[in-house]
Amino acid sequence: MRIAVSADHAGVDLKDLIAGWLGEQGHEVLDLGTNSHDSVDYPKFGAMLAEALADGRAERGITVCGSGIGVAIAANRNPACRCAQVAEPLSATLARWHNDANAIALGARLIGPEMAIACVRSFLDTEFEGGRHQRRVDQLSHLSQETA
Amino acid sequence: MRIAVSADHAGVDLKDLIAGWLGEQGHEVLDLGTNSHDSVDYPKFGAMLAEALADGRAERGITVCGSGIGVAIAANRNPACRCAQVAEPLSATLARWHNDANAIALGARLIGPEMAIACVRSFLDTEFEGGRHQRRVDQLSHLSQETA
Repeated sequence: MRIAVSADHAGVDLKDLIAGWLGEQGHEVLDLGTNSHDSVDYPKFGAMLAEALADGRAERGITVCGSGIGVAIAANRNPACRCAQVAEPLSATLARWHNDANAIALGARLIGPEMAIACVRSFLDTEFEGGRHQRRVDQLSHLSQETA
Repeated sequence: MRIAVSADHAGVDLKDLIAGWLGEQGHEVLDLGTNSHDSVDYPKFGAMLAEALADGRAERGITVCGSGIGVAIAANRNPACRCAQVAEPLSATLARWHNDANAIALGARLIGPEMAIACVRSFLDTEFEGGRHQRRVDQLSHLSQETA
C-alpha cells in the first residue's frame, strides 16, 4: 500500500519508527516530514497528510503529534480525509469497520512504540464493512459543502 | 457554561447521563438530540454540535457515538470546532492546554460512565495555555480556506 506519514517535532521519532516498520512490511512510504526535533506547527503536518490522500499520492495516512489531537483536527478539515485518533487497536479496527478511516492520528506522549505498531496493524489489516456505514461515510464527505 | 450535547443512537444513553450531570453542576445544557435508540446517521449530530459552537449558542460541546470517531470527524469539518476524541482525562486536559478544544467526542461502547464524567470534568476545568499554542490554534481555523 502507498502510505503517507507525517508528524510534528513531538511525533517525529515515533513517525520514523512506524515508517521503518511499514517499509519492512513491504509498503511504499511517503514521508512528509518533519524530520528533526526543531519546533514546528502541527496544523501544517496534519493538513499535508490529508492533501496526500486527497490527491491520490497515498491510499492511507498516519500522522503523529504529542497527543494525536492537533494533527487529527487539522487532517479532518479536509473532506477527503477521515482521520481517527487512536490509542489502542480496537479503535483503529472500529475506525476501519464503521468509518472507512483513511488516516489515523497517534499521540507519541501517550502511547509507546509497540502499542503504536499494534494500532497501525489493525488500521491496515481491517476492511470497511460497507452497508449502512457507506451512507454515513458519504455524508462525512459532503458536510463541509452543506455547512459552508 | 452553556454546553451543547449531541449523540447518535449508540451514544444517546451516555449523552443523557452527561447532560444530567452537567445540569447538576449548574451548567446550561443545549440538548441537540438524538433522543431515542432509533438508528440515526452520526454525521448530522457531529455537525449540529459544531454549528452550535460556530453560532455562539454554546461555548463548549460534547458529542457521543459508539467509538467517538465518527462524530469527531463530522464536528471537525467545521473550522469553528476543535473536537478531541478522548477516552481518558489526560487527553481531555491536553486538548484544552494545547489545542483550546471547544468540543470532545466520547465512545459509549469504549468507556464507562465514570470515565466519561472524568473526561468531561477535565475538559471543563482546564484552561488553555495560550502562548505558542495560540498561533497553532489560529492555523486550525484557517486550514479549510487555505486548502479549498
